Amino acid sequence: MTDTLIKETVDRLMEKINSISAPGPGYTRPSYSTLETDSHRVIAEEAEALGLEVTGDAAMNLYARLPGRDRKAPALYVGSHLDTVPMGGAYDGTAGVVGAMALATAFVKSGKAPPTDLVVTVIRAEESVWFPVSYIGSRSALGRLTAAEMQAKRTDTGRTLADHMREQGGDPDAVISSSGLAPARFLELHIEQGPVLDDAGEAFGIVDGVRGGLRYRDARIEGVWAHSGGAPRVSRSDAVFALADLIVAMDKAWGTVLEEGHDLAVTFGRVDAATAEHAFAKVPGRVDFCIDIRSDDTAIMERLDRIFHDEIARIEKARGVRFVTGAQSRSQPTRLSPDLGQTITAAAVALGLKPRTMLSGGGHDAAAFAQAGWDSVMVFLRNWNGSHNPDEAMNPADLIQAVKVLHHAWSKS
Amino acid sequence: MTDTLIKETVDRLMEKINSISAPGPGYTRPSYSTLETDSHRVIAEEAEALGLEVTGDAAMNLYARLPGRDRKAPALYVGSHLDTVPMGGAYDGTAGVVGAMALATAFVKSGKAPPTDLVVTVIRAEESVWFPVSYIGSRSALGRLTAAEMQAKRTDTGRTLADHMREQGGDPDAVISSSGLAPARFLELHIEQGPVLDDAGEAFGIVDGVRGGLRYRDARIEGVWAHSGGAPRVSRSDAVFALADLIVAMDKAWGTVLEEGHDLAVTFGRVDAATAEHAFAKVPGRVDFCIDIRSDDTAIMERLDRIFHDEIARIEKARGVRFVTGAQSRSQPTRLSPDLGQTITAAAVALGLKPRTMLSGGGHDAAAFAQAGWDSVMVFLRNWNGSHNPDEAMNPADLIQAVKVLHHAWSKS
Repeated sequence: MTDTLIKETVDRLMEKINSISAPGPGYTRPSYSTLETDSHRVIAEEAEALGLEVTGDAAMNLYARLPGRDRKAPALYVGSHLDTVPMGGAYDGTAGVVGAMALATAFVKSGKAPPTDLVVTVIRAEESVWFPVSYIGSRSALGRLTAAEMQAKRTDTGRTLADHMREQGGDPDAVISSSGLAPARFLELHIEQGPVLDDAGEAFGIVDGVRGGLRYRDARIEGVWAHSGGAPRVSRSDAVFALADLIVAMDKAWGTVLEEGHDLAVTFGRVDAATAEHAFAKVPGRVDFCIDIRSDDTAIMERLDRIFHDEIARIEKARGVRFVTGAQSRSQPTRLSPDLGQTITAAAVALGLKPRTMLSGGGHDAAAFAQAGWDSVMVFLRNWNGSHNPDEAMNPADLIQAVKVLHHAWSKS
Repeated sequence: MTDTLIKETVDRLMEKINSISAPGPGYTRPSYSTLETDSHRVIAEEAEALGLEVTGDAAMNLYARLPGRDRKAPALYVGSHLDTVPMGGAYDGTAGVVGAMALATAFVKSGKAPPTDLVVTVIRAEESVWFPVSYIGSRSALGRLTAAEMQAKRTDTGRTLADHMREQGGDPDAVISSSGLAPARFLELHIEQGPVLDDAGEAFGIVDGVRGGLRYRDARIEGVWAHSGGAPRVSRSDAVFALADLIVAMDKAWGTVLEEGHDLAVTFGRVDAATAEHAFAKVPGRVDFCIDIRSDDTAIMERLDRIFHDEIARIEKARGVRFVTGAQSRSQPTRLSPDLGQTITAAAVALGLKPRTMLSGGGHDAAAFAQAGWDSVMVFLRNWNGSHNPDEAMNPADLIQAVKVLHHAWSKS
């Protein structure tokens, strides 16, 4: 009976939440948008119907509490986020929230309370493409968001985080002055967003660490505009050729670091030499770009940052261009809770499964909770067709299996 | 007295024409726009005031005729264009039209008719950034524009050349069915758009050839969208890294060809990985680009085209991406008239000057006239700060000197 309930909950909520989106392709629910708020309301209504106690905080994170047998022990918060990247997929964030609701449903319908309070948690603003700040919702919940960060501007509207938060019913001043939730435990279900589980044919895995990131989100190269037929090679200061030099150099460094056995990913996600001023018959005098360097090792991030600046100095000399890197933003690599990981692994083994322990390439709210001293863990779900795109795909049966393992993990204790 | 008249004409017309532009920076008069038409009207009114016979053709090219002593000999058409690239400079095209008017003024005011009819010629739509067709106005005048080309769409409006031409008062059907002007002689004054004359400290030069171009204006690379943290290096199909590989490979080929002593320029003027779908946290699944390959030697253009396709095949295999090059467009390298060049050089020498003979890197209407069997020549004017940009600069004194040389060349004959 529990299986059927879990499946019904997963199917119903997936459909309900993904019916809320800006026009496609894919799914778009910006951080602190009315669309994100509407998707939170779906969970609030479902949780109330299930008999959970629904509350919010000043940042509009949502908590739906199911009382445990020991009401004084630190609660187990279970959840993820409902905002998406522009034209994102159906599962990034959503699968974890839906899974948390399915877990709460399983406890309620089984008639057996969890050992501690179980709090279905829907975090705001996880996707940092909207505001250049990492983990906005979870760090707000933890009393760790700064006044300066509250002034960050949303990339599409140009309006501040404080403004958008207030518009959706939040209280930015209260967020800044809050001391945050008392340390407890956090569990996040999330699609892997990479091919490891799918390639290995495994439904889910236990995550023991989250990569950090070092980014220059608004870098540019200033060259000299010229006529593509009239400017000789030696006199050109071509911004696009300079960027190509940089990308190839960073690619080479990436290969070297991987060969040495370290963890690293390098991405130039946005390259813009496509303004009204650019034309096929002009040597480009400007190109805008961003770079995202991720690793589980801060020293590797620092090393790549040094290579980045060394290559820039070399290319500036060789090409007669000027780089303006803009502000650097960072998130730190984070270890997750081995104890919580072991609890879940043991339950899986008891059910005849052997989940692997793995690293998260992407950043997640679970890292923010861990950095605040919580016991925090993630369960990754197999997915395919990549992530952050409309074709992102997973099998709901994998989510259902993971929820059953979590139910087993906390039912037996 | 002639000097003062030439200077007055140059100063007045430069200011009048450049007062007509879309909002800056720089000057923007799109091909077959009302702004281009308004600038033609300035010349028509000035020419009529000077007593020239003003006519137009079905493509709205403008001809202002000053009768010569031998009215049966082939006329000398002198002119250039008044459309600009987006946010272009004050002199590209305009300087040549203004110079032609100054030359006609010098003949009229001197009281001595030119040896043959002198026709101030204002050509439409020379800047092929607006429509993906080369030399629209001059090839229309010559009866060489095709019905298919008439359906090309303007890049900013998406509407056809026929539509825009009709809107400005032209007759596309008449253009297509016209047999064109009878072969005569064409002379174009134009800024160099490169640093050669400026570096050498020379006011003007005689052009004996025009580079051809081979272009893919709407190429793209299709990769696979993925999460920048979750997708391992080996599983990525990153469109931006693939483009960087291509640019660096084409740059290397360019260097090799120059070392061998051939003429070549390679430009990627527009690179677009900046849509709403692109984000710093996403491996880019698509990038759009254009490539412009120019040379005075068709064999070199062909060789670069082969390298381009060979590199694409190599990168597609290495990166797991797919290139879609789109349509190729071309203009042929063209020899200009040695006789007309010699006439001008002789006049310059008589005035104590020693202009060099040089190649044009950019394409110009003079090439279209030469390809149609006309005696066609260009005079390049020293300019600096490159071209096709708002800072494009030249010294009006250089234009005045060149006009005096031309007046001398045809006064004495």
